[in-house]
Amino acid sequence: MQDTKSKRSLEVPKTMKAWVLDDPEQLRLTEKPVPEPGPAEILVRVDAVAICGTDLEILSYGLPAIVEGGPPFNKNFTIGHEYMGTVVKLGRGVDEFAIGDRVTAEIHAGCGRCERCREGMYTSCSNYGLNYGDKNKGHRANGFTTDGAFAEYAVNNVNTLIHVPDEMSDEEATLVVTAGTAMYGLDVMAGLLAGKSIAVTGPGPIGLMGVALAKSLGAQPVILTGTRDSRLAMGKKLGADHVINVRNEDPVKKVLELTRGRGVHYVLECSGASNALNEAAKMTNRGGRVCLAAFPHEPVPVDLAHLVRNNIYVYGIRGEGRSATHRAMAFMQQKRFDATIIHTHTFAFEEIPTAIKYAKERIEDAIKVVVKMG
Amino acid sequence: MQDTKSKRSLEVPKTMKAWVLDDPEQLRLTEKPVPEPGPAEILVRVDAVAICGTDLEILSYGLPAIVEGGPPFNKNFTIGHEYMGTVVKLGRGVDEFAIGDRVTAEIHAGCGRCERCREGMYTSCSNYGLNYGDKNKGHRANGFTTDGAFAEYAVNNVNTLIHVPDEMSDEEATLVVTAGTAMYGLDVMAGLLAGKSIAVTGPGPIGLMGVALAKSLGAQPVILTGTRDSRLAMGKKLGADHVINVRNEDPVKKVLELTRGRGVHYVLECSGASNALNEAAKMTNRGGRVCLAAFPHEPVPVDLAHLVRNNIYVYGIRGEGRSATHRAMAFMQQKRFDATIIHTHTFAFEEIPTAIKYAKERIEDAIKVVVKMG
Amino acid sequence: MQDTKSKRSLEVPKTMKAWVLDDPEQLRLTEKPVPEPGPAEILVRVDAVAICGTDLEILSYGLPAIVEGGPPFNKNFTIGHEYMGTVVKLGRGVDEFAIGDRVTAEIHAGCGRCERCREGMYTSCSNYGLNYGDKNKGHRANGFTTDGAFAEYAVNNVNTLIHVPDEMSDEEATLVVTAGTAMYGLDVMAGLLAGKSIAVTGPGPIGLMGVALAKSLGAQPVILTGTRDSRLAMGKKLGADHVINVRNEDPVKKVLELTRGRGVHYVLECSGASNALNEAAKMTNRGGRVCLAAFPHEPVPVDLAHLVRNNIYVYGIRGEGRSATHRAMAFMQQKRFDATIIHTHTFAFEEIPTAIKYAKERIEDAIKVVVKMG
Amino acid sequence: MQDTKSKRSLEVPKTMKAWVLDDPEQLRLTEKPVPEPGPAEILVRVDAVAICGTDLEILSYGLPAIVEGGPPFNKNFTIGHEYMGTVVKLGRGVDEFAIGDRVTAEIHAGCGRCERCREGMYTSCSNYGLNYGDKNKGHRANGFTTDGAFAEYAVNNVNTLIHVPDEMSDEEATLVVTAGTAMYGLDVMAGLLAGKSIAVTGPGPIGLMGVALAKSLGAQPVILTGTRDSRLAMGKKLGADHVINVRNEDPVKKVLELTRGRGVHYVLECSGASNALNEAAKMTNRGGRVCLAAFPHEPVPVDLAHLVRNNIYVYGIRGEGRSATHRAMAFMQQKRFDATIIHTHTFAFEEIPTAIKYAKERIEDAIKVVVKMG
Repeated sequence: MQDTKSKRSLEVPKTMKAWVLDDPEQLRLTEKPVPEPGPAEILVRVDAVAICGTDLEILSYGLPAIVEGGPPFNKNFTIGHEYMGTVVKLGRGVDEFAIGDRVTAEIHAGCGRCERCREGMYTSCSNYGLNYGDKNKGHRANGFTTDGAFAEYAVNNVNTLIHVPDEMSDEEATLVVTAGTAMYGLDVMAGLLAGKSIAVTGPGPIGLMGVALAKSLGAQPVILTGTRDSRLAMGKKLGADHVINVRNEDPVKKVLELTRGRGVHYVLECSGASNALNEAAKMTNRGGRVCLAAFPHEPVPVDLAHLVRNNIYVYGIRGEGRSATHRAMAFMQQKRFDATIIHTHTFAFEEIPTAIKYAKERIEDAIKVVVKMG
Repeated sequence: MQDTKSKRSLEVPKTMKAWVLDDPEQLRLTEKPVPEPGPAEILVRVDAVAICGTDLEILSYGLPAIVEGGPPFNKNFTIGHEYMGTVVKLGRGVDEFAIGDRVTAEIHAGCGRCERCREGMYTSCSNYGLNYGDKNKGHRANGFTTDGAFAEYAVNNVNTLIHVPDEMSDEEATLVVTAGTAMYGLDVMAGLLAGKSIAVTGPGPIGLMGVALAKSLGAQPVILTGTRDSRLAMGKKLGADHVINVRNEDPVKKVLELTRGRGVHYVLECSGASNALNEAAKMTNRGGRVCLAAFPHEPVPVDLAHLVRNNIYVYGIRGEGRSATHRAMAFMQQKRFDATIIHTHTFAFEEIPTAIKYAKERIEDAIKVVVKMG
Repeated sequence: MQDTKSKRSLEVPKTMKAWVLDDPEQLRLTEKPVPEPGPAEILVRVDAVAICGTDLEILSYGLPAIVEGGPPFNKNFTIGHEYMGTVVKLGRGVDEFAIGDRVTAEIHAGCGRCERCREGMYTSCSNYGLNYGDKNKGHRANGFTTDGAFAEYAVNNVNTLIHVPDEMSDEEATLVVTAGTAMYGLDVMAGLLAGKSIAVTGPGPIGLMGVALAKSLGAQPVILTGTRDSRLAMGKKLGADHVINVRNEDPVKKVLELTRGRGVHYVLECSGASNALNEAAKMTNRGGRVCLAAFPHEPVPVDLAHLVRNNIYVYGIRGEGRSATHRAMAFMQQKRFDATIIHTHTFAFEEIPTAIKYAKERIEDAIKVVVKMG
Repeated sequence: MQDTKSKRSLEVPKTMKAWVLDDPEQLRLTEKPVPEPGPAEILVRVDAVAICGTDLEILSYGLPAIVEGGPPFNKNFTIGHEYMGTVVKLGRGVDEFAIGDRVTAEIHAGCGRCERCREGMYTSCSNYGLNYGDKNKGHRANGFTTDGAFAEYAVNNVNTLIHVPDEMSDEEATLVVTAGTAMYGLDVMAGLLAGKSIAVTGPGPIGLMGVALAKSLGAQPVILTGTRDSRLAMGKKLGADHVINVRNEDPVKKVLELTRGRGVHYVLECSGASNALNEAAKMTNRGGRVCLAAFPHEPVPVDLAHLVRNNIYVYGIRGEGRSATHRAMAFMQQKRFDATIIHTHTFAFEEIPTAIKYAKERIEDAIKVVVKMG
């Protein structure tokens, strides 16, 4: 390793294998040129990539409307954004990382020049998706607006990379961005969480990481709601003090009971259920806060009067802002909780379609499905 | 005045005239004992009181469910919370004000001992409404949970009073709390507003004060939307750079046009219209913020996906927190705008039912109807 | 216990033993009336009280100049502010605690009516010390401006009390306010600390608690500097990743070395050494922050140019604001660290002068000396 | 103008006149290549540039130690950072500005990739000064670490430019960055200033702009201290409610008197006097805040005990962060105050050495000396 560290690149082939989007729901394995890292960029050899719910969305519906150029189908576009790997080539001006470093990637690199980036809100970059040709503002969202990691190599902005400690496995390192999203929600909504109560609604990957992080930050009690006992049991292992199966109990009533009628200080909403915001607002109290990390696809009835009368703030969050992945990584590195609990299945690069099928259909109660390269 | 200032009280009668709630929609003029100010309290002779939309709500439906003891009907309860007057008696330990001082009142005095009060969120006091008997936590909300100002005298916590400068009329001084509510919304949502764009939706009293304050704070442009040209014209006088009559134009399209496609940084929602939040979310941009100062009474369909995908924060606000009335008063005292524009009608104390009728039915396009005592 | 909980008081004698200040350095044991709790107040039977460095200061020099009425000598004044005990009597309107509850006390109860209290800065109450006679604003600072706990009983504002969990010893519970002060410094200066680096300078009780809390919050690395190896060893047990004995090494140089030349994000200064601020400023980097929790008694030379050129913020903190004691208690209750390590000696109530001597002269390397009643 | 706007560049010569640093205190007029704007950069034809106190410092002592490569003497380096001009050429990906636009420049463009930039603190960029060769991180500080505006043309990062409204003169537009620095200090220290009291110590350009902006933000009262009556009179014109000549009156005593013994909420320190911080701390009150925008060159005795005991925060600020120049420009554009009052002298490009002499020796009571091109 010593030798490689002094170099600007490892040997890198000219072309690589990559999965690309054809028609909706169609992935095709192809051969692409290995991309070149520009200034402030790094070429990473992908070692592992996890499947995210958003990957499934893009595969079915394309990207959010905010991206110029329309749907990504049949454009040779590669998705995949929860990944880690090894630094193999450095762009101009890069010395924050060395060849051979193991790194994990957050999704967004803001343009660094718009109003939002200048105030630190880089995941809300005003130049979102403008990263080609004349409109090149330098924004990147790996696997959303720039090629992602269902491929052997991927380019990243130096901004998006975090060192992976030696003792952390490749698989665990792919979970940092999921944890980072939960951490961002906690940061924005709650800040200092120690000694405060929180309910996490929805035990998906973000919700489960939310439980683990809230516990690490000193929240008490941490309450998790969901529909499946297996997931709730996982939540307990990750630090939930109480779990509520909403099939058996009224979650609002139960949360109030667990908090002696006062409600929780914060609710991290990760279920996307139709009535989730209304219930969340009733689980908290006057002056309480709710973070929406998931959402129903159609407009749903919301009791706005309750929000106003109770001075409740609602935070929609997108992604993993405020460098929250770094805080998430710190807790994972310090072994405050075992993130690998949510990693349930592993497949090889060639099996990505199967991996996706497992994630989508929750086969064998799959939570995080990881694709391990090489 | 010199003489009176050294005293602890002016001469005060034992009883006073007061309007009280009978059945819903019924006000009755009666005689009540003049209340005694306790420690940290002040007795104020009411000199003027304005009618607020919330007064009309209480008169019809009673108080929000959060107040113990149920509806306020037939309990000798006096409403009225937008008032000013003259200090006539000081409770123990009070030297912040002197006998004879002219003062205007904000609504809420938090208990000072709960978690919310201790973090400065006194309008979200956890002991809201607990101000009687064994449950006495010292919270007061004038005209909501403790007797208000449709009476000759009213007791206030020293916390809620602000000095009225000599050159400000009684009528103008009653508007400070309305302006304070708008200011609170701007504070919570936007903080430093100078140079940022804002849309205010709904040209009621709070919306119009919101326009004036946003302008005073340096916002640009300030855009006002509404349905009536007369109100919009008033908004222009108070500082709106652009007004949009939503009967003639699509407000979302127009706001985007006025901001070269970028949307405004902030929306202060004061209309309570069913689609107001969805429109507000589309008037702003990624990372934008919306403050709800009004609300529809029934749940309405809300596009939560748009909030999450665009990282939009939504702030429900109740009342006039963070001492925002003091900031509002500062701008009014500095004559940054003419708040009296929204004061349209004046009635005598005995005419309160007529005053309420004017406010409710918007007779002669009434906005702020003020009752002037004596 | 069940029975006692339903009562408003346990049996309480009319008089109690209390130590009072005579001339400087002179404590006298006397008999005093047991005080009556007023509205929002609670009478606590003191079960344990720790000696704080500030007690020693008051004993020698009197109170800070901010307290009306001059020095506290020969006025029958009782000091002692790091204490815990049992609730024995409730003032009017108190139901937050029940008779028989074990509680620990923070020092300050703000007046709840001044500008600072209204914005949540109750330890900076503008009515500091005004709690008697006509000037009674309701401020309390236990053992500073109102009688403290070198006595059998003490009155507290309900604001200042925190429940002590069953499994926590009396001795440990007296340490909560020390930890709360360190936590306040971390809150004000750093907020979200996870993944950030910090140096704590000075391994006194506050510094050592600062190390433990910073570690609990996820800071990395946590560096502690000091002059005595025994204290530094204690710091290691409490979570310091690195310790620096400034007698052997240049702490600035060493901190830079440990952070690969970048400096730490934050410095919590707890030594009060003459050059501590200058060194702290050089241990951090452009945009860094320093919190002063200790101070030299005389003015010292400070390189202000360095602060300005490097955009460094310096936070003087007094006491344990922002309800930080609650966060500190949460971590202690969750057994994130063993606070009892800093508790070195125990004495009986009658031995308070000896306890003070041990604390002052650091006899047998005393850190926290606790007085256990009964 | 219409025609030029559609182009990517106006005609630009190959070389330009520029003043460069020789030995300390020596400026030499020379011919340099006109620089090329890279991605995210813009070439500006300099139309006017003001002399700043920092220019005089660099001329005498070189740059702060933070810049790699040592002193800037005899390296063909061009200083000058308070400037405005006309856009003549656009780098790749730039469409925020058009050819022919009038713009004014703030100093700092952060690297956009370090920790500080990512949290919005771009003036505290961790890669300060690293903008050449292999270490190229993209940071720029015009006239400090990259060539400035004592030249016919200058390159800027798109981040640093602000549109100048048609009705604003070239001279006034050069003052925006000075106002932006004062605004940054107010932002960091005070946030919402309306209704709060402030003292500005030192009526130099930043202090005077601080007075004007504090007034615009609604502060009351605004108190200015200084040693020269002519400057204080200027402060009055810009909005000071009270001025104090420290040669005639004790400023601490007077500030306390003007605030009825309570002290001001905030102090913006712009004098750099030896005792300024101690006096500022005594002008404010418990919980108060002081911003240091100037500094003495040598360490000075500071009463840290006073800062700690009174919970005072001290903010060293460097430059014009948080996009404060945009807020300053908003107020100037809205004509809230007449910034041109501080512009006292104008010289031609060839006369820069004379302009500097006027600024340095304050000839004819010079405040802002502006160099007008062409």
